[in-house]
Amino acid sequence: MSTTPQHDVRMTGFISRKSFREVREFIQQSVLPGPSEAVSVRSANHRVLAEDVVSSVNVPYFNRSAMDGYACHAEETSGATDYSPLYFNLIGEALPGQPFDGKMGRNEVVKIMTGGEIPSGANAVMMAEYTQHEGKQIRFTLQVAPGKNIMRTGEDIGIGDVVLERGRRLRPQDLGVLASVHQAKVKVVKSPTVAIIPTGNELVEPDSEAADTRIVDSNSYLLQALVELYGGLPTFKGIQGDDYETIKAAIQSSEEDIIVLSGGTSVGEEDYAPQVVHELGKLDIHGVSMKPGSPFGMGRIGEQIVCLLPGSPVAAFVTGDAFLGSIIRRRLGQDVGFAYRKVRGKLDQKIVSSIGRTEFVRVQIQPDFTISKLRVSGASILTSTTRADGFLIVDEEKEGYPEGAEVDVYAYD
Amino acid sequence: MSTTPQHDVRMTGFISRKSFREVREFIQQSVLPGPSEAVSVRSANHRVLAEDVVSSVNVPYFNRSAMDGYACHAEETSGATDYSPLYFNLIGEALPGQPFDGKMGRNEVVKIMTGGEIPSGANAVMMAEYTQHEGKQIRFTLQVAPGKNIMRTGEDIGIGDVVLERGRRLRPQDLGVLASVHQAKVKVVKSPTVAIIPTGNELVEPDSEAADTRIVDSNSYLLQALVELYGGLPTFKGIQGDDYETIKAAIQSSEEDIIVLSGGTSVGEEDYAPQVVHELGKLDIHGVSMKPGSPFGMGRIGEQIVCLLPGSPVAAFVTGDAFLGSIIRRRLGQDVGFAYRKVRGKLDQKIVSSIGRTEFVRVQIQPDFTISKLRVSGASILTSTTRADGFLIVDEEKEGYPEGAEVDVYAYD
Repeated sequence: MSTTPQHDVRMTGFISRKSFREVREFIQQSVLPGPSEAVSVRSANHRVLAEDVVSSVNVPYFNRSAMDGYACHAEETSGATDYSPLYFNLIGEALPGQPFDGKMGRNEVVKIMTGGEIPSGANAVMMAEYTQHEGKQIRFTLQVAPGKNIMRTGEDIGIGDVVLERGRRLRPQDLGVLASVHQAKVKVVKSPTVAIIPTGNELVEPDSEAADTRIVDSNSYLLQALVELYGGLPTFKGIQGDDYETIKAAIQSSEEDIIVLSGGTSVGEEDYAPQVVHELGKLDIHGVSMKPGSPFGMGRIGEQIVCLLPGSPVAAFVTGDAFLGSIIRRRLGQDVGFAYRKVRGKLDQKIVSSIGRTEFVRVQIQPDFTISKLRVSGASILTSTTRADGFLIVDEEKEGYPEGAEVDVYAYD
Repeated sequence: MSTTPQHDVRMTGFISRKSFREVREFIQQSVLPGPSEAVSVRSANHRVLAEDVVSSVNVPYFNRSAMDGYACHAEETSGATDYSPLYFNLIGEALPGQPFDGKMGRNEVVKIMTGGEIPSGANAVMMAEYTQHEGKQIRFTLQVAPGKNIMRTGEDIGIGDVVLERGRRLRPQDLGVLASVHQAKVKVVKSPTVAIIPTGNELVEPDSEAADTRIVDSNSYLLQALVELYGGLPTFKGIQGDDYETIKAAIQSSEEDIIVLSGGTSVGEEDYAPQVVHELGKLDIHGVSMKPGSPFGMGRIGEQIVCLLPGSPVAAFVTGDAFLGSIIRRRLGQDVGFAYRKVRGKLDQKIVSSIGRTEFVRVQIQPDFTISKLRVSGASILTSTTRADGFLIVDEEKEGYPEGAEVDVYAYD
């Protein structure tokens, strides 16, 4: 075995640790949005808008009925009740796509369906349930106010309105709005491609037998799905052995926008990845004051971003969420942040943390928003991430939270 | 125009309205989980487990180190400090996948890397940062407790443990756990196929010019993405005209598990869909006491489920979320419910609702969890769903909520 001093240096510490906030700030500043592409609105769910969408039309495009009933002059219905109904002459009908061509005169009404154009002269729609058909006449048993049940031109969206903003991740209802302003295509940011490279001589695929001191590569599985969650396109590059040349070759043969290595990223004897990045480009960050996840590194080789995640699955997951996720978000034109919703709840026990490092605490969220810390939460226990409903972050300047404290928790999807 | 009494009946009401809860209950009881299939764990993100996953291995499979450092006898380190260090003889190393073959004797230590097997005789790992290398000796400046930094066999997962339960929608970390128990494939419920059929003579595609009284079909866009959100596989069947034979033919030519029509589902003159379902199969539900979304219908034709959604985009979206989403969830073996996280917040104004119907109120969620009702929230204003961060439900037996009330809100993704 090797006992040269160099190895001991590699085993005993990072040159300069950054705080969680400094790394997030670095990502926010250094990672720029990627190029855009036009895609069909039908396939744009979850994509991120590359530019504001400004409407060139009014929605609706014409005054239309919001109800099935009768277009009428509101003033003429004044005083109509069950006991003193009023009678009107039915002169035609307006269906969706088939407007009534004439003009309504005194005491005249037009039968109208939801979506039908309001006839010229009408200023309200009486709901069908307060009317009755009697020969050529319609009986109203209620009065109606001007404008009632009419959807006015441009009431939903006006010409020139910004309907959706750049950086927005599209939801189902957004696609509906895009269609409604006559956009069949939409400009979105290209999804960044991400190479996933797990490293370690001990790693095997899950379809191998459990035997001796081999360990299944679980990181590439969780990281691949995490990349998808944040909007990237992952490619699994196969398990790579722990040696300098193998890791160098794996990095050099990857053409993806972002290269993610897991394992061998710390300051131990077999941790070659930081050295390779340092040699091929620039290792901007190595070591973060956080738990779990301190052996995180990040650098650049030409235009490519390299992300060095710890080998421990929990630490790989936490740093993948905290930093790789934010790198993908920035490439998509979004701010750094998590893919998860924040919820607010009350701690059912105190949480103790160390000043000087940011701690990620996996928690369960009860239906009444009581927040419970998971009992087993060692950095090696991957099932702690599946038993958890989310996590909370204890800032580096905090010693923790007392029992009963109100806390904000990131809730897993 | 037609003035036969039959049409007036169709225009003036549903035969028997159900409550929101009754419809949910009907879906929970009547929709059964679909068949399952085995898929690669790598492509299983977001899929729903068809059966419990029971581990056939221990994780870890052997006692391993959770740190870089030195495997030692904890008892021998007793009293070590910076001022009175203790010295040990280094007799070898244990790397991940390359265990130390010998047995540690008195006062001996073995250099070990994270993931390396704990050598026979050792019962703790001293972190590298509290040690120094001096020739063949290692200086310890801290004492260590038995078991420290050792991850014991089966500590994460034991043989026979249920690691993930049937009905669970898989998250990134779940895929990591599946890999770690040597599962390369996993049994998930087949994604139900869903036919999307917008109906209406007035409907046009978004790439057409805005003109006269045509309206863009936005429903098929939002419904398609909503189906994906809930885990279904949507197919757009094209816009269909408002006539009995066209709608009948569109339904009969659809082989999907679930058929969704939007528009023409109410009791108006041109609402043929309910009649077609009644004729071809069974119309179980028609009309729900809710706002928006009352003209919802649901039925079965043979093994196929038919879902009739209102034509108004907001109502289509709300009933799609509330009922179509639950139908898909039940087919996937999950309980009825929304795809969204609940968050708890405080209302900044009162909300008034009518007893006897369930109301869906679109709201904004401030960063401090103040909940604000959207000012414009008419059922025709689709942009109310894009300006909203989520919605709250006012039960049918409630008149609303006072200002300052604590409410639970479903937050859009």
